[in-house]
Amino acid sequence: MSGDGAEMLARATWSALVEPGDVVAGTVVDLLGAVGALEWVRAAVRSGPDLAGLEERHGPLDDADRRRVAKAVARWAVRLPDCDARRDLEHLDRLGGTLLVPGDARWPSALDDLGSEAPFCVWVRGEPDLGAVLAPSVAVVGSRAATSYGERVAFDLADGLTAEGLCVVSGGAYGIDAAAHRGAVARGGRTLVVLAGGVDRAYPAGNARLLEAVVGAGGALVSEVPPGSLPTKSRFLQRNRLIAAAGRATVVVEAAWRSGAMSTAHHAARLLRPVGAVPGPVTSMASAGCHRLLREGVAVCVTDAAEVRELAGVIGSGLEAAADAARSADGRAARHQDSLDPVSSRVLDALSRRVPTDVDRVASLAGVTVAEARGVVGLLELSGWVVRRGTGWVAVRIATS
Amino acid sequence: MSGDGAEMLARATWSALVEPGDVVAGTVVDLLGAVGALEWVRAAVRSGPDLAGLEERHGPLDDADRRRVAKAVARWAVRLPDCDARRDLEHLDRLGGTLLVPGDARWPSALDDLGSEAPFCVWVRGEPDLGAVLAPSVAVVGSRAATSYGERVAFDLADGLTAEGLCVVSGGAYGIDAAAHRGAVARGGRTLVVLAGGVDRAYPAGNARLLEAVVGAGGALVSEVPPGSLPTKSRFLQRNRLIAAAGRATVVVEAAWRSGAMSTAHHAARLLRPVGAVPGPVTSMASAGCHRLLREGVAVCVTDAAEVRELAGVIGSGLEAAADAARSADGRAARHQDSLDPVSSRVLDALSRRVPTDVDRVASLAGVTVAEARGVVGLLELSGWVVRRGTGWVAVRIATS
Repeated sequence: MSGDGAEMLARATWSALVEPGDVVAGTVVDLLGAVGALEWVRAAVRSGPDLAGLEERHGPLDDADRRRVAKAVARWAVRLPDCDARRDLEHLDRLGGTLLVPGDARWPSALDDLGSEAPFCVWVRGEPDLGAVLAPSVAVVGSRAATSYGERVAFDLADGLTAEGLCVVSGGAYGIDAAAHRGAVARGGRTLVVLAGGVDRAYPAGNARLLEAVVGAGGALVSEVPPGSLPTKSRFLQRNRLIAAAGRATVVVEAAWRSGAMSTAHHAARLLRPVGAVPGPVTSMASAGCHRLLREGVAVCVTDAAEVRELAGVIGSGLEAAADAARSADGRAARHQDSLDPVSSRVLDALSRRVPTDVDRVASLAGVTVAEARGVVGLLELSGWVVRRGTGWVAVRIATS
Repeated sequence: MSGDGAEMLARATWSALVEPGDVVAGTVVDLLGAVGALEWVRAAVRSGPDLAGLEERHGPLDDADRRRVAKAVARWAVRLPDCDARRDLEHLDRLGGTLLVPGDARWPSALDDLGSEAPFCVWVRGEPDLGAVLAPSVAVVGSRAATSYGERVAFDLADGLTAEGLCVVSGGAYGIDAAAHRGAVARGGRTLVVLAGGVDRAYPAGNARLLEAVVGAGGALVSEVPPGSLPTKSRFLQRNRLIAAAGRATVVVEAAWRSGAMSTAHHAARLLRPVGAVPGPVTSMASAGCHRLLREGVAVCVTDAAEVRELAGVIGSGLEAAADAARSADGRAARHQDSLDPVSSRVLDALSRRVPTDVDRVASLAGVTVAEARGVVGLLELSGWVVRRGTGWVAVRIATS
């Protein structure tokens, strides 16, 4: 097997040997390389850890470090006999999948920001060029126990982001995650599902068709654990760091006061990625986590795809201006009069729509000079706001619909 | 008439002579006193403004200042003949009202923060000791075109704030304002209605009974313009600065993208008063202004009375802790397992609820040493999380309701 093949096998082995986010493992691999670290572990299991070998690269280890390493070796020793990377890779092969390791041109470099908590490798089903899929991307996450409001917002956000060419990253769960993936797929876009268990397992089973549709639409299912691995609670929590790292920004659509989506938001914040939260009714517990993120300053308030794109720092297609205009439409009638200067506005207010008012009276009512009142009604007449009737003036009703 | 009487008459006259927020008037009164400034205006109308007299107090005026003063005198001259403070005070007297001027022990000193835009006086119906009514207070404002969600939140907020001894200040309008006043009155508390027109005018007419109930409950209706004054558009906008100044903090419950409530929020921000915004569905245009305030960093997200009280910096009665507990209640089941350390949590995840698992297998599934697995299942058994069955262990279902 070539050097690259050995590296892949070693990383595949590491991904089966240790639980996701095992910092000791990450550090040992950083120090010795995946292949060297695995040889070091095999020797350690046979004859005790070679701490001097580690210290050569790391510098002196203190007693606490030594204890942590010894304990790690003891727990890795339990699983080592069961690890068989060739078997796992054959399994992946039967699924038509791809193993990505750092250095591969298709590797999603965003994950490197996780440092010694980065995954050893990524097991992929679907489009293997994750670098291309993710450029650029936004994580859209939230509660399994979502409301119809939250699901609608997640779908619409994903639809809008996909239309703008952004990849939506989420966890494939029921509720917000599924709605986000659906919005992306419905728009014909690529979306990334980061699973807590193996990519052979459609989890939850009720989303199996959705996950197939993601693959069919050119997206991908990914996991840091080999095919066959169960999605345990701790893997769900660790999985959240991958979602946060994969997106340029993370948006929480609905989340209870404590929830997995909150952990994803905090992972993103620790990675210095922007975090957005979609507000909702304060009477809805499903939005309590979003409001908490806003109150605590962890997240910025986002209400549509244009604002999320802005959060992620992705240059847009000018749709913001249109959205701003649409938002302002409800204030159109008010804006008409707002467009007047304060004196003109006061003069207009002083006029009745029925009974003509003469200029002296207008000046008194509006609190302006007679000369001002005369000048202003003349200008207002030119703009169609008022008409002369007899010796006075009346305001014209402006259509507001 | 005593000196104080002259001051009151002069201030009452100023409040009729100029439009609210007339900065030239405010400056002249600051320089010469209300009585002296009025004498100055009367002389100016007869024989031109005595700019030298102003410069004696103010320092040199530049050409722009001189033009502004001349223009102001010209507009005041129009109204001066109609001003009759004695008539206005008699009108107030028939309403059972009170005129407050700065220096009165009952004067709401919070308004002084408006500087040269402070009102000359406040016309009051109901409880005249505004200093007492307002200590402490929060402005709760929002759209006339409120949704049932917004009205419910405004009512509940006002109810909760009143229960905590805070006075709710608002504008007496339909929608959010009315719901806020209603919440305060329903709780038997004092609330302050700041009107844009005279205190003799129940505006809008549909809220007449509510405004009477406010007075009946020990609150007050106030205005900076004399009885009989119309609530014009510019007076509504100026009125908002009084609402913002009267509250220690201002909370916007619902507001369209542009609206009067947004102007109140910006007045509060300019006064360095804290601003809160209640989030709502992003699909509701009635909440678009609130979300805008959150996004632009003008407002903090607030979702209940305890958070509003915290915003206003009012020491509470320990209800926060209870509210936090209530909010966390939906996360109770999750918290149980969250309370376990990571290793215990992983061991628990490794156990089935039906099929017993032996300790070696637990260690491998959880990625821990056999010794750890053995220790942890023992502790979990003591806490009732797991039970031994044969040579293995099963997890116990924890009630989550």
